[in-house]
Amino acid sequence: MRRALERNNPLQPGQRPFRLTRGFFITFEGGEGAGKSTQIERLARKMRAKKYDVLLTREPGGSPGAEAVRHVLLSGAAEPFGPKMEALLFAAARSDHVEQVIRPAVERGSVVLCDRFLDSSRVYQGVTGGIDPAFMAELEQVAINGMMPDMTLIFDIDPAEGLRRATVRRGSDAGADRFEKETLAIHQARRDAFLAIAAAEPERCIVIDASADPDTVEHVVTAAVFAALEARAPARNRQVAPV
Amino acid sequence: MRRALERNNPLQPGQRPFRLTRGFFITFEGGEGAGKSTQIERLARKMRAKKYDVLLTREPGGSPGAEAVRHVLLSGAAEPFGPKMEALLFAAARSDHVEQVIRPAVERGSVVLCDRFLDSSRVYQGVTGGIDPAFMAELEQVAINGMMPDMTLIFDIDPAEGLRRATVRRGSDAGADRFEKETLAIHQARRDAFLAIAAAEPERCIVIDASADPDTVEHVVTAAVFAALEARAPARNRQVAPV
Repeated sequence: MRRALERNNPLQPGQRPFRLTRGFFITFEGGEGAGKSTQIERLARKMRAKKYDVLLTREPGGSPGAEAVRHVLLSGAAEPFGPKMEALLFAAARSDHVEQVIRPAVERGSVVLCDRFLDSSRVYQGVTGGIDPAFMAELEQVAINGMMPDMTLIFDIDPAEGLRRATVRRGSDAGADRFEKETLAIHQARRDAFLAIAAAEPERCIVIDASADPDTVEHVVTAAVFAALEARAPARNRQVAPV
Repeated sequence: MRRALERNNPLQPGQRPFRLTRGFFITFEGGEGAGKSTQIERLARKMRAKKYDVLLTREPGGSPGAEAVRHVLLSGAAEPFGPKMEALLFAAARSDHVEQVIRPAVERGSVVLCDRFLDSSRVYQGVTGGIDPAFMAELEQVAINGMMPDMTLIFDIDPAEGLRRATVRRGSDAGADRFEKETLAIHQARRDAFLAIAAAEPERCIVIDASADPDTVEHVVTAAVFAALEARAPARNRQVAPV
């Protein structure tokens, strides 16, 4: 990215580096146990080492209002909720998260890395929750209000392996949340749904083979993200301003 | 109502009374300090004395999931929420309230009296919150899923008088919630919006002059509710079944 910028806006020796006037919004999606959390932290570390201003966040939650809704969603009280109420609560939390945290960060030029975002709603409430897709799409637009991710990394893994990893991570089945406890068939349907989104929106989504070892996955993620930043650089270049 | 039923289904001496196979859903709407809570309790007492099975409930809240959302909405955390997030949270809470409480009660033949329902959302988030009316209408349909009130009593009072009453009720301004603290102009806009709903849906809505003394208002409310039940009786009659 920096190289691309320098190609078009050659810096004089001693001049300070450029920063994007609009940041870059990357979401991490996929099923349980795919290693999203590990990889999002590794990428944040790597980007910060390269002097990017990085904001790490997650859904549901990420802002005070959305965290309050997260508490409702993930509490025992959430157990009997239907997918319709869940979809509305996720949309409410997302709306707050976008307006309070994500949009301001992107507008000030940060790279925002978000653990789960709209594709999780499409898959968890839309596809396997059975909510009308047209209403889900409308709810999505209201919640994000134009704040579509620049890039989405879909961590793909065989659900049986993902659930095995999630169990190992906790040490036992005891702490499994209600999403993890669902049948393998549902997890398989979600995997298929994430892959279908990636196929339908190839300009936004990249499928990451999450079955590889963490170092290999990190390498693939890093290459994909920096390639996307490079690709954007020439157009972006016209917007850059000295810090 | 009972008289109407007896006219068409004469009971033999000693026979037990009839109960509706589908109940009656009445909502109470209007601005602050209009006396809704007092009147809803008086009506419940009066109907129970006449052996109606009455369920008294309120929004936001009314079911465990919706009460959890109410806590988010009315907490300090809710203060900075925009009307969009509020509309989504109210819809989520309403969806749970309808499916867990209202619909089952109406289906088992109860009279459901609900303090605030969809018209409050139309007015508070729709009209004075500035949310797109088409989206509000869609959200309403998703939340109520066909559970439109049979009857809505709109308690109408001059906002200045309503706010004065709300202050007297609390003993001071100290406990005023954030809705009560808004400007008189906003309260006036809400009054107009409630009256516009009543004008647009006269078959569902009855405007109650809430400036009168409580006994007079009670008399008007009772007359309106029992007249509506009487009016429904002949059609209803074909559905009744012995308890």
